[in-house]
Amino acid sequence: MPQLLRVQNFSISQDGVGAGENQTFERPFGDRVEPWELMSWAGATAGWPNRTDPGGTRGLDDYFTRDFAHNIGAEIMGRNKFGYQRGPWTDHEWQGWWGDEPPFHTPVFVLTHHVRPSFTLSDTTFHFLDATPAEAAQQAKAAADGKDVRVGGGVSTVREFLDAGLLDTLHIAVAPVTIGAGLTLWESPEELEDRYHHETVPSSSGVTHHLFWRD
Amino acid sequence: MPQLLRVQNFSISQDGVGAGENQTFERPFGDRVEPWELMSWAGATAGWPNRTDPGGTRGLDDYFTRDFAHNIGAEIMGRNKFGYQRGPWTDHEWQGWWGDEPPFHTPVFVLTHHVRPSFTLSDTTFHFLDATPAEAAQQAKAAADGKDVRVGGGVSTVREFLDAGLLDTLHIAVAPVTIGAGLTLWESPEELEDRYHHETVPSSSGVTHHLFWRD
Repeated sequence: MPQLLRVQNFSISQDGVGAGENQTFERPFGDRVEPWELMSWAGATAGWPNRTDPGGTRGLDDYFTRDFAHNIGAEIMGRNKFGYQRGPWTDHEWQGWWGDEPPFHTPVFVLTHHVRPSFTLSDTTFHFLDATPAEAAQQAKAAADGKDVRVGGGVSTVREFLDAGLLDTLHIAVAPVTIGAGLTLWESPEELEDRYHHETVPSSSGVTHHLFWRD
Repeated sequence: MPQLLRVQNFSISQDGVGAGENQTFERPFGDRVEPWELMSWAGATAGWPNRTDPGGTRGLDDYFTRDFAHNIGAEIMGRNKFGYQRGPWTDHEWQGWWGDEPPFHTPVFVLTHHVRPSFTLSDTTFHFLDATPAEAAQQAKAAADGKDVRVGGGVSTVREFLDAGLLDTLHIAVAPVTIGAGLTLWESPEELEDRYHHETVPSSSGVTHHLFWRD
């Protein structure tokens, strides 16, 4: 099986917003966007990787969250998913939003113009790359031990990989909320239909799951 | 996490038929039922465990087939899923329908009143149990190394575990075909709503996926 570059469980609003402007430590999704507005569908499921209590739903949404780590050997993320700082690193103590047990359990490649040394938290190692999407894809695939590579976001990073024609499949969850302004993945999902098959699956949570793949 | 007893990817017709009467070697699904009528949705997906050629769809159906082995540590099946013979074993050469590389990759417990010695094909070991559903569930969970147990069918076996209140979740795929007579799982899926949450998800393949779970 060829190694795929996949977007999974990436949540946006009905108007295509994945994050707001002006990200800060207090507002990791930026202006206007509360994380739970976009992500509560995932947190409600039994399979949510960050779940600490038992229970959770077992419906359609759960099939998507359970698939999060399936056959994934590495993640690529943008610097703004990794943290809220911009420019040269002034706080090397910052090791991401996820505490001592990040939910990735694979190598993670953070794209940034300001590289810094790799570090490991539990079974996740973060590497910092100043590279094009194609170069990052190549390096992540080499580290993924034959498995697929997740492109984890944020929205600008997904767009860069999309524009470079590198993504093999996307699962985009459109939450039943309208934000009004921010960083958008698309104006309409139909924009991708020149390049991908597109299946739309409504869930009882109110989320619509959009699946894209190519031959 | 507690160990669950799960039905997955179990395919029936719109009138609830999972298999026909009079199973033979030539007709593993019995009278009236061609296997591909119920199962073609699964075989078309990229994630289908028995797939030998590259390609396949990556849409909703694929999420279900990819989940087939996820966190499964054992399978329980009825004797009529294992083979077409009835009564005492006259042909011990029969080792199931699946050839030298069965798609289970775990211990498999075959329920039968006629036990025979265990045997191993590749990484699948078949055990034969004369036991109640509850006893079989207990034994399979002990063998599953902390993972869940799949109840793999056939339709009579699923019914027995359902009637015994042992199933924690079910994923039933209703294919867009009517058979007319045979072994039925239900007259209507609403029959299970006194005991389970029920979510219905239509797929572009024409299959409707029914998901059942309880708190």
